[in-house]
Amino acid sequence: MTAAHPHERPLGVAVLGYSFMGKAHSNAWRNVRAFFPDVPPVRQAVLVGRDAAQVAAAGAAYGWDETATDWRQVIERPDVDLVDVCLPGHLHAEVAQAALAAGKHVLLEKPLANDVAEAEALVEAARSARAHGVRSMVGFNYRRVPALELARDLVAQGRIGTVRQVRICYLQDWLTDESAPMTWRLRREQAGSGVIGDLASHAVDQLGFLTGDSVASVSATTRTFVPERTGPAGPEAVTVEDAAWATLQTHGGAVASLEVSRVAAGRKNGFQIEVYGSRGSVSFDLEHLNQLRVHDAPGGSTLTAGTTDVMVTEPGHPHLEAWWPTGHVLGWDHTFTNQAADLLRCLATGTDPRPSFEDGLAVQRVLAAMEQSAADGSRCVAVGADELAVSVPVTA
Amino acid sequence: MTAAHPHERPLGVAVLGYSFMGKAHSNAWRNVRAFFPDVPPVRQAVLVGRDAAQVAAAGAAYGWDETATDWRQVIERPDVDLVDVCLPGHLHAEVAQAALAAGKHVLLEKPLANDVAEAEALVEAARSARAHGVRSMVGFNYRRVPALELARDLVAQGRIGTVRQVRICYLQDWLTDESAPMTWRLRREQAGSGVIGDLASHAVDQLGFLTGDSVASVSATTRTFVPERTGPAGPEAVTVEDAAWATLQTHGGAVASLEVSRVAAGRKNGFQIEVYGSRGSVSFDLEHLNQLRVHDAPGGSTLTAGTTDVMVTEPGHPHLEAWWPTGHVLGWDHTFTNQAADLLRCLATGTDPRPSFEDGLAVQRVLAAMEQSAADGSRCVAVGADELAVSVPVTA
Amino acid sequence: MTAAHPHERPLGVAVLGYSFMGKAHSNAWRNVRAFFPDVPPVRQAVLVGRDAAQVAAAGAAYGWDETATDWRQVIERPDVDLVDVCLPGHLHAEVAQAALAAGKHVLLEKPLANDVAEAEALVEAARSARAHGVRSMVGFNYRRVPALELARDLVAQGRIGTVRQVRICYLQDWLTDESAPMTWRLRREQAGSGVIGDLASHAVDQLGFLTGDSVASVSATTRTFVPERTGPAGPEAVTVEDAAWATLQTHGGAVASLEVSRVAAGRKNGFQIEVYGSRGSVSFDLEHLNQLRVHDAPGGSTLTAGTTDVMVTEPGHPHLEAWWPTGHVLGWDHTFTNQAADLLRCLATGTDPRPSFEDGLAVQRVLAAMEQSAADGSRCVAVGADELAVSVPVTA
Amino acid sequence: MTAAHPHERPLGVAVLGYSFMGKAHSNAWRNVRAFFPDVPPVRQAVLVGRDAAQVAAAGAAYGWDETATDWRQVIERPDVDLVDVCLPGHLHAEVAQAALAAGKHVLLEKPLANDVAEAEALVEAARSARAHGVRSMVGFNYRRVPALELARDLVAQGRIGTVRQVRICYLQDWLTDESAPMTWRLRREQAGSGVIGDLASHAVDQLGFLTGDSVASVSATTRTFVPERTGPAGPEAVTVEDAAWATLQTHGGAVASLEVSRVAAGRKNGFQIEVYGSRGSVSFDLEHLNQLRVHDAPGGSTLTAGTTDVMVTEPGHPHLEAWWPTGHVLGWDHTFTNQAADLLRCLATGTDPRPSFEDGLAVQRVLAAMEQSAADGSRCVAVGADELAVSVPVTA
Repeated sequence: MTAAHPHERPLGVAVLGYSFMGKAHSNAWRNVRAFFPDVPPVRQAVLVGRDAAQVAAAGAAYGWDETATDWRQVIERPDVDLVDVCLPGHLHAEVAQAALAAGKHVLLEKPLANDVAEAEALVEAARSARAHGVRSMVGFNYRRVPALELARDLVAQGRIGTVRQVRICYLQDWLTDESAPMTWRLRREQAGSGVIGDLASHAVDQLGFLTGDSVASVSATTRTFVPERTGPAGPEAVTVEDAAWATLQTHGGAVASLEVSRVAAGRKNGFQIEVYGSRGSVSFDLEHLNQLRVHDAPGGSTLTAGTTDVMVTEPGHPHLEAWWPTGHVLGWDHTFTNQAADLLRCLATGTDPRPSFEDGLAVQRVLAAMEQSAADGSRCVAVGADELAVSVPVTA
Repeated sequence: MTAAHPHERPLGVAVLGYSFMGKAHSNAWRNVRAFFPDVPPVRQAVLVGRDAAQVAAAGAAYGWDETATDWRQVIERPDVDLVDVCLPGHLHAEVAQAALAAGKHVLLEKPLANDVAEAEALVEAARSARAHGVRSMVGFNYRRVPALELARDLVAQGRIGTVRQVRICYLQDWLTDESAPMTWRLRREQAGSGVIGDLASHAVDQLGFLTGDSVASVSATTRTFVPERTGPAGPEAVTVEDAAWATLQTHGGAVASLEVSRVAAGRKNGFQIEVYGSRGSVSFDLEHLNQLRVHDAPGGSTLTAGTTDVMVTEPGHPHLEAWWPTGHVLGWDHTFTNQAADLLRCLATGTDPRPSFEDGLAVQRVLAAMEQSAADGSRCVAVGADELAVSVPVTA
Repeated sequence: MTAAHPHERPLGVAVLGYSFMGKAHSNAWRNVRAFFPDVPPVRQAVLVGRDAAQVAAAGAAYGWDETATDWRQVIERPDVDLVDVCLPGHLHAEVAQAALAAGKHVLLEKPLANDVAEAEALVEAARSARAHGVRSMVGFNYRRVPALELARDLVAQGRIGTVRQVRICYLQDWLTDESAPMTWRLRREQAGSGVIGDLASHAVDQLGFLTGDSVASVSATTRTFVPERTGPAGPEAVTVEDAAWATLQTHGGAVASLEVSRVAAGRKNGFQIEVYGSRGSVSFDLEHLNQLRVHDAPGGSTLTAGTTDVMVTEPGHPHLEAWWPTGHVLGWDHTFTNQAADLLRCLATGTDPRPSFEDGLAVQRVLAAMEQSAADGSRCVAVGADELAVSVPVTA
Repeated sequence: MTAAHPHERPLGVAVLGYSFMGKAHSNAWRNVRAFFPDVPPVRQAVLVGRDAAQVAAAGAAYGWDETATDWRQVIERPDVDLVDVCLPGHLHAEVAQAALAAGKHVLLEKPLANDVAEAEALVEAARSARAHGVRSMVGFNYRRVPALELARDLVAQGRIGTVRQVRICYLQDWLTDESAPMTWRLRREQAGSGVIGDLASHAVDQLGFLTGDSVASVSATTRTFVPERTGPAGPEAVTVEDAAWATLQTHGGAVASLEVSRVAAGRKNGFQIEVYGSRGSVSFDLEHLNQLRVHDAPGGSTLTAGTTDVMVTEPGHPHLEAWWPTGHVLGWDHTFTNQAADLLRCLATGTDPRPSFEDGLAVQRVLAAMEQSAADGSRCVAVGADELAVSVPVTA
């Protein structure tokens, strides 16, 4: 097994999946070189999906050279160098392991897997592949929101002092109405979990990303407010949680609160993060993704101290050089383009991208601890020691 | 023991305490009739404090007829009908019981007491007094913020459907700096607790006020981020919590998250409340106390659905008729004037005011459960059944 | 004519008028000493109104010792030292001149008068009185909003550099509905003007207050959108403007835009001010009167530059020492209490308060120029030179 | 002259210009089919620029099949069906006329031209071409901001009643610093004007777009705050305006205020629009381009009336079906993709797109009137009757 890409031709990409995430990732591959001309040339080689007609239509619209229906064949193709997995979580482990074994770099949509065992297997596979120069990355795209990158930088530079309190919520409302129908996302056997895998995974990843800290223990609660919804065959039990709450204690001494919900009426994509340190704070809301709010009171006078609304669209802001002049805001999908650029740069320089599968496993362990605590009367649960963790330098 | 006030003279008020709360309550008594001319005449009879010179100066400034230093004498005075207790928590039980025993109506600043035993004794005293027409009230002044009263009304009318999720935080930052000095508020023997009694008490009271629901169980965590501060005699241990987190489950099936802190850099008086129901939501921030944000999407079309910023300054809004024209905003201290008016109306009509001592005890039990859970690894703790609770109709 | 107040007794105040402004001023006199104990003792001597029964009721509620119906008698009373005129604009000149002639200090509600001639007469009267130690002040209460005082200080300190552009609007919506009935405020013979005297006067005064600059020329437009409304006797012509626009050029080289309206649906008391200088900017909205937004980008890096939301509730902020702890917000009426305190301090120290009648005349001249320009096709009109202006040092 | 495109092959596009606007338009052509699969197939045929090496690099990055340096040759190519002109304003007339004469559809960046004469010539050319099925459009991209499209729809549906007042400002701050260097944009002979052509053009276009009304007369003021800046050869006079103000009266009876500036410290791309009608209002800020604020108080009760923050990301919102799920926000560049889609649909159906060149001429006349009024003491100037205007049905 060796990384296959001969650098004299463009890097061949295959995306597996063509719905929501497949569309977003396709958009990234189609546009990455227009904004980041320094990254290696890339070719949209093949889009893969189960339905031949639908994937063909999607492939044509999204700019792919070919489409296919058999992912096993695709990952063996010599002109495919990078496999980008946008499939449901229960397929992650099998597909990504196979792709890595075939010597392909892998970008895997978040969350890493549906459970810790699968996540551990993926980390094992990534470690083996890494030894042969085959790279892997988890697609926590919010690590490439410029405002959050700026927040991470400010925290790392000590601008807010020692982090003490972190408040994270991710609130949506698409399940508020009791008459919203049953979907596969509300069945545990398919979705793995409800808001925990879908939303809390982003929240836990950001906690690590922004603070550089890791979670030691968790107390959690979950709730399904609407226990039954109407499915194709009549009333059906909802077997995943609608909302979850957790208090996380970190190894570094901080405490984070976390609240995620799909029944928070009025919140569309309300991923809100506040980090409080010993000398200041930063806060963010995904519904206003071009802004970061910063409080770092000057020592001398408090008369003009306050919270500063920073419009994160300056050329010096993370990833912004690539885009538009000051004040011309980015949208949600640009985070995937930034992510693609960072991954391509790592491939070009032979470095391991972040978030790594180890990062994804760390998230998975916290999610598992949340479920365990919730099942045990919110008792504080230690997060499993991560024996597989290796020291991966930050490259983002 | 009988309620003493002969209605042919103004109701005589004594305020005990002349610092922060004493000033705020004095302001309420001085102004209540100017805005609520329908309430019974009231006389600022006597202001009580330990330091004769200081209380004399305060009394002159705040409009009191007399000042005194011995609260025991004052509560026996025949021209005093209402005793308004603005003393530290550890004095609440003794003073209020004595005043009630003397047949005086009592307004007692929040929280009701420093522990459940004292709170229970106070409820006993209030019940006995009530039988003789002697009234009692706890001073949770935020129940008289018009925007929160409007929120309560909307919830009660079903405008947001069944309440499912409540998010409450109360964030301040005056202890952020590690060099902030030791004060009595950071010693458990004097203050009883840290943020729990001071801030979480307001949060828990609002939960009950806004939803009409009560807390069944609690999982909590507390933390002292700065364990030692410089006192008059050098370094001294901080024996109360800087911050606390809790997940509360209600008898009605809702889940509330609660986060309170004195080290949230940049938040001055950030009491933020969000109530999510099955058909809408309301949200509030004390730093913008004239506004309520309401989401109650119309059934037909979602094209102009969103969150409505309601400026709660219309004549029809709670308590607003008394004040200024539309758009002329109220301040923090006006809530105490509203509270005084409501109390006086209850005295005039012979009804029991809310929040009652029973309401205060209910809060106290939740705070105690928070401390118990935090001490026991965040384990979910049932809130003690309130055997003393009596059905008290809402009059506010 | 000599200032009458013998300092061995409290300063006797008479307020003329007991409706909206009379209530607000009464509130200020009743409370000023509770918050500003250093100012001279003050006595609420007499409240004056035309309707004996109504003024008696108001006087009792608002804390006045006496009430009266004949203002001419009241201004001659030896126990009255200060006459506070809260009457409609067309009565200002006669009443204030008489009071000054009687040797009484005068506080006159804004605007100074209904036209320039009256305003000039008032300045003459104020100048004569000043020579005898009799003080006078116009009640532009928004000069005592702490956030605006902070803005003035920052501008004066050069924090935003040279002022170039000022944007001021004052938007209300109480006349939006065409079926809103006719009132005296919409008849030119009684009200003098529409939004110009009522709202633009505040805007023009703030322009001078915040920048220290004065208006050289004006281009303006006015409009009555609803030309007829239903009065007691049927349809009646509206003879004042619903809205006005102006572009003002200052002697200092700045340009200010001004827009005032009573038909701006959704704006309740939207007095918004933005001041842009060569190095930064400040902005304010009366609907959020405890906040100032400040932009003054640091030279070195723009990465965290932005607009800072300053909560103007710190002890060091203007007038805030008197009030509550950090984060406990003030309301609209507190500006009148601040104003009363500043006036009393001037009386105590024998200095002339600001805004002076000269300040009021300067505003009046600009308003007159607005009307003249609007009547002449928006042609740019020079503002009349203020021959009466005297140098009055700022004392506020 | 006949529209050349044989529908059996993709529509060939040529973009002229490869800097800021060329990049934005290239992005639109590269992506339009991925989001709007129903529009005709399109081919990025050729990118044109003066510098062969630079345009080659840009062409490769932006996805173009070819690049070229001679626009005259390109507009004659049979495989080019649409010429998209992203050149400076002084080249618009010549290039667009030539392209139309060659039978090519034309998309012309705003503003239409640098003066009215050129604009009139372009309208003539567009009318002639239109008779042969050759279409033309001006690139006022903000007409494709979904929130503004929603605003236009609400106004058109009468949701805010009769429009009375419109407030528009477009504030930037890149010239705030006096040491910002001289550029061609500050020389009248090259740029035509300063903020008037650059920013006021958008403002005037939106006024027409949102209200369906047209400007009858204008009073305006302009100012150059920094009259000299350092150029390559030392100090040089700035010959265009830094800021401009105007009051516009419409044929429909509304009044609009307009303020545009490049020296408004702290505003990055502050295009703010408020439309007030007899029954409600809408407001918008480009720095938060996914939101529209709507006030349309319900008739019955005012208790929950206010201003509703609408997140314009629902599938039913204009152009949103094409993009992402609810709450996943768009960025600035997506407006160009929407514009490209609308233009392509018009070409497919043989209808004339809006904004037409006539729309662009109407804007140009208002801008000319602004300059004339400013040069004549702000005197109100009638906007020239548009004899060339033809009735063009809205197709957007």
